[in-house]
Amino acid sequence: MEKTFDRRTDLSKYDNSWYQPGSRSKRFLWFIFGRIFINTYLPVPIRIKVSLLKLFGARLGKNITIKPKVNIKYPWFLTVEDNAWIGENVWIDNLTNISIGKNVCLSQGVLLLTGNHDYSSTGFDLIVKPIVLEEGVWIGAKSIVGPGVTAHSHAVLAVNSVATKNLDAFGIYRGNPAEFVKTRVFKK
Amino acid sequence: MEKTFDRRTDLSKYDNSWYQPGSRSKRFLWFIFGRIFINTYLPVPIRIKVSLLKLFGARLGKNITIKPKVNIKYPWFLTVEDNAWIGENVWIDNLTNISIGKNVCLSQGVLLLTGNHDYSSTGFDLIVKPIVLEEGVWIGAKSIVGPGVTAHSHAVLAVNSVATKNLDAFGIYRGNPAEFVKTRVFKK
Amino acid sequence: MEKTFDRRTDLSKYDNSWYQPGSRSKRFLWFIFGRIFINTYLPVPIRIKVSLLKLFGARLGKNITIKPKVNIKYPWFLTVEDNAWIGENVWIDNLTNISIGKNVCLSQGVLLLTGNHDYSSTGFDLIVKPIVLEEGVWIGAKSIVGPGVTAHSHAVLAVNSVATKNLDAFGIYRGNPAEFVKTRVFKK
Repeated sequence: MEKTFDRRTDLSKYDNSWYQPGSRSKRFLWFIFGRIFINTYLPVPIRIKVSLLKLFGARLGKNITIKPKVNIKYPWFLTVEDNAWIGENVWIDNLTNISIGKNVCLSQGVLLLTGNHDYSSTGFDLIVKPIVLEEGVWIGAKSIVGPGVTAHSHAVLAVNSVATKNLDAFGIYRGNPAEFVKTRVFKK
Repeated sequence: MEKTFDRRTDLSKYDNSWYQPGSRSKRFLWFIFGRIFINTYLPVPIRIKVSLLKLFGARLGKNITIKPKVNIKYPWFLTVEDNAWIGENVWIDNLTNISIGKNVCLSQGVLLLTGNHDYSSTGFDLIVKPIVLEEGVWIGAKSIVGPGVTAHSHAVLAVNSVATKNLDAFGIYRGNPAEFVKTRVFKK
Repeated sequence: MEKTFDRRTDLSKYDNSWYQPGSRSKRFLWFIFGRIFINTYLPVPIRIKVSLLKLFGARLGKNITIKPKVNIKYPWFLTVEDNAWIGENVWIDNLTNISIGKNVCLSQGVLLLTGNHDYSSTGFDLIVKPIVLEEGVWIGAKSIVGPGVTAHSHAVLAVNSVATKNLDAFGIYRGNPAEFVKTRVFKK
């Protein structure tokens, strides 16, 4: 074994005891109710979805669209403002706060990822960082937004791309990792 | 705020009233039956899947394979020709016509995407365009074919790629956006 | 039609009769039990998941984590060593052996793909090749490991990437196809 490589991952030492996302009973209840009413293909009325999410602590604006089969980790870490769309099969993996601004569109299959691991630590330390999607942002189908990313006003992330850094306002990004392609200009 | 950026997305103005994909009752019935018999891991016999899809208006050839957990938006916008394979977890998001030719293979997790939005309009106008996959095309696992794309005869799209433009006949493509890699040559 | 293109895919000639992954009854039973206890969002205790997988022939070490909604093709082709993590929505599509070493982490949505097709044969011949993930490897969220790939000790594959070739020990890879980015160095 080479000298530089004498340390190794040991997941038996993994310690995320500092991470306290909420009481066990609350999480268990959400796990059950979320699966039944939100992460489902049953045609649950939006009014019921919104009420349930608010009951579990989500801060939701008016006129929100939530399509079928949406997977939300912890609603009490979720803010969604007016007119935002959450598409089919979207996965909001919010170990910490995710803020979705007014008129944001998350297309089908989007993954918002707040968790990471420190791969330079043998204990594979958990890292959690919030995500902020400002007003008018569009995250394309099957795209992924990583931990700590802020997508500024009206940024666009193209289909199947990965945002690992902040996206500038009115910027259109694509690829893995996502790179700036051009500016979003409104014509009408 | 810069002058060019004085317009903003307003999803409360979103108007897709021109888009009429079929009667409410038909869509509701399909939503229920599709979930029970097609978008499921239950081992439903292919004969039943085919009959149900035809009942809802799909045009299906002979000897078609439909694996478990296939998500089809509207079967009445779907044509599948002889011997085609539709893999596990394939998502046919056909807001308009999708045509799948003879001997086409859609590998597991493929997404066919007919819908888009005009991000230069404040109303985020809906755009729908058909997809044509000609004879012998192979779409690799977890790849995405975008609106308006025609994949010509025997084109191949590699795993996890995104086709945003037409694919030439017998061309092999990869990446996001997919680019030509080499020509498909049959040896036997 | 050009001369070089006079051969075409004919899936009616597809012949995978040489591929014998186990008796029909065993596969059917696994299909049912796997869906109920493993490929589910129900909070099934890990002890039950492990026992069931072992009953179906998986070789599992100690202290393994299996998150909800894991899709395993055939447990009798699966080896998982101590402390390994299998994340939510991971898809282990093991038509043949997959070996997951000690302290390996498969993040959410990973796809391990052992099957391929010979696109140069008109019969679209099935190709299956094993996957080996050595000790300490981390496969990032929604990434894909292809047939025949060995990820050597402590290699890292970044989010949404595709490994089509072997990954060197302690190498960090990203993209589609995944390319070497830098070396993984442990600091603590």
